[in-house]
Amino acid sequence: MYSQELLKPDGRKLTLYSRFPIDEGIVAPSPSNEKVAANPHLRWHPLRGEWVAYASHRQGRTFMPPPQYNPLAPTSDPEFPTELPQGRYDIAVFDNRFPSMSIAAHDPPASIVETLPANGTCEVVVFTQDPQTALSLLEVDRLDLLLQVWGDRTSKAPPQIQYVLPFENRGVEVGVTLHHPHGQIYSYPFVPPVPARMLECQRAYYQQHNSSLLPDLIQQEIAASERVIYLDEYAIAFVPVCARYPYEVWIAPIAPVATFNDLSVEQRFALAKALKTVTLKYDGLWNRPFPYLMAWFQAPIDSKPHPEFQLHAEFYPPLRTKDRLKYLAGTELAAGMFANDTLPEEKAKELQAVVVNIETPVKL
Amino acid sequence: MYSQELLKPDGRKLTLYSRFPIDEGIVAPSPSNEKVAANPHLRWHPLRGEWVAYASHRQGRTFMPPPQYNPLAPTSDPEFPTELPQGRYDIAVFDNRFPSMSIAAHDPPASIVETLPANGTCEVVVFTQDPQTALSLLEVDRLDLLLQVWGDRTSKAPPQIQYVLPFENRGVEVGVTLHHPHGQIYSYPFVPPVPARMLECQRAYYQQHNSSLLPDLIQQEIAASERVIYLDEYAIAFVPVCARYPYEVWIAPIAPVATFNDLSVEQRFALAKALKTVTLKYDGLWNRPFPYLMAWFQAPIDSKPHPEFQLHAEFYPPLRTKDRLKYLAGTELAAGMFANDTLPEEKAKELQAVVVNIETPVKL
Repeated sequence: MYSQELLKPDGRKLTLYSRFPIDEGIVAPSPSNEKVAANPHLRWHPLRGEWVAYASHRQGRTFMPPPQYNPLAPTSDPEFPTELPQGRYDIAVFDNRFPSMSIAAHDPPASIVETLPANGTCEVVVFTQDPQTALSLLEVDRLDLLLQVWGDRTSKAPPQIQYVLPFENRGVEVGVTLHHPHGQIYSYPFVPPVPARMLECQRAYYQQHNSSLLPDLIQQEIAASERVIYLDEYAIAFVPVCARYPYEVWIAPIAPVATFNDLSVEQRFALAKALKTVTLKYDGLWNRPFPYLMAWFQAPIDSKPHPEFQLHAEFYPPLRTKDRLKYLAGTELAAGMFANDTLPEEKAKELQAVVVNIETPVKL
Repeated sequence: MYSQELLKPDGRKLTLYSRFPIDEGIVAPSPSNEKVAANPHLRWHPLRGEWVAYASHRQGRTFMPPPQYNPLAPTSDPEFPTELPQGRYDIAVFDNRFPSMSIAAHDPPASIVETLPANGTCEVVVFTQDPQTALSLLEVDRLDLLLQVWGDRTSKAPPQIQYVLPFENRGVEVGVTLHHPHGQIYSYPFVPPVPARMLECQRAYYQQHNSSLLPDLIQQEIAASERVIYLDEYAIAFVPVCARYPYEVWIAPIAPVATFNDLSVEQRFALAKALKTVTLKYDGLWNRPFPYLMAWFQAPIDSKPHPEFQLHAEFYPPLRTKDRLKYLAGTELAAGMFANDTLPEEKAKELQAVVVNIETPVKL
């Protein structure tokens, strides 16, 4: 993997990644030359025992781009620079222009609860220069590179960072209006509530069984087989027995692996194949781009080994039928207990029935 | 308060509540006479350490009601019975026909994770016989009665129940297509994750300070005053300093009160006034019915006193502007850290500026 770090005129970082050497002399553009001066802060939520991030962004200069303007495509009209340059590269990562967290944040307001500067990072990850494609249609090798990029961003996290979470929000149903294939990486100066809970559950299991929770569950999923969507020697994708969303799917290495950077070459390539299979099956299910939130959970960054924590992806699709949303309401958002009107076994059957070929993808 | 318990032909319970004596001889209708045989179960989610409920409902007999059919209005055409009878009563509570939990649930399927019958209850609470009104337009006395009804349902919870959560999902934005004013009560055979976390945080604070967390925070909110929406001698409504949603509002008694049934008459009436004020301000903000999830948190049912737990309501509105949703995505759903693009102080100012008169409501 080759990479090149650049600086945008507004002070934000841009890193280009490729399988091939990247041209020297690429200059990083930005839609605006105005210095990004985000100063988000955190407030402590005493009733839930968690941090909430606050950022109020002033809109920059009046910017009236042409209708086809796509900030994630390589700049074609120098009068309307995008976030990305022309040139040969595969994947690009840059600092979000309107971040919820920023390493430069400082002097949080005094309040009746504890406050802190929101010293995290919010990065945008552009999967390809082609605005018309999708994660499911990228080559397995590109997905493999993406897994490497996620690992690289984890290694390069600033010293304040304790948790790095790559995710993709896909589809208007989850609020995404920009369809150029891209994801995000949020890096937190603390371990946020959900991974913290996962850590706690996996730690308790490890102490009790001297064995890792998710790899053990995966062995049981393999033995049961009825919920498995993809399986090879190194990786698995399955509708988990405890799915909270009707079409929830998890992807994981089969052996214990704590972080992206702990993956073997074989494991990483197998995860890429599993990822392609799952996203192709999703898009094939109803022959429409399938909306989802995809999140990759890994162990926290704290210089301790984490044999208990299993790297894995969880997909939370907002649809329960082709055109019906599963709304999160009273029991999910207020109580925290999910109610699923379908059985994971039934939904797994539907996804198993979608035939895909990860070698010869079809255009959406 | 008067009440009358009835049984529907399909075996479900219906309780009518009123300020006045309820006619004898009212017969409880049901859209279907088919026995409700829901058998939901719980599965343990080992990575999150929480229960997930599964219910797959067979649709009953083919039912083709007239277009104006409203299952929550009193039955007018005996050929198409609704959930409610004619007669003089104010509020009605009945068992949901398609429940996520049921006291009668039994024999959960064996699985690779622990399973249990989902022995909870899911009740529908109809606030009024008038389908055209809203919580904000009901008289303060009706809201006071509603608070009493929530208390009564808490007292009448079956012995398996450990937590009773009344809530209202309002608006198509949160998936509600039935606009007749109504809410729900979910009663859980365990303390669900969110109230469990609140209990834990409040307990730790109480042990450290020998004083209650939320009442102490409320004193600070009163002193700061900038986020207060309603205040009298007994109750307060405010945009909390740690709001996760732009227009989040909490309502609470000012003195420590653990459950609905611990409220004094004065406290209850003050909460009713605060509730009317908040919902009127919401509807007045953009002159449109304001969508929200409203949840009322109280102490668990475990025969122990809970001086640490404060009864209160939390409103989670899905809109961030008149026509823009705040989508819950990567950081909220996957990490559990909410990112709020607005400051609670600014949103409180907007709500403070909406002038309402809780004595003379205007039709929506």
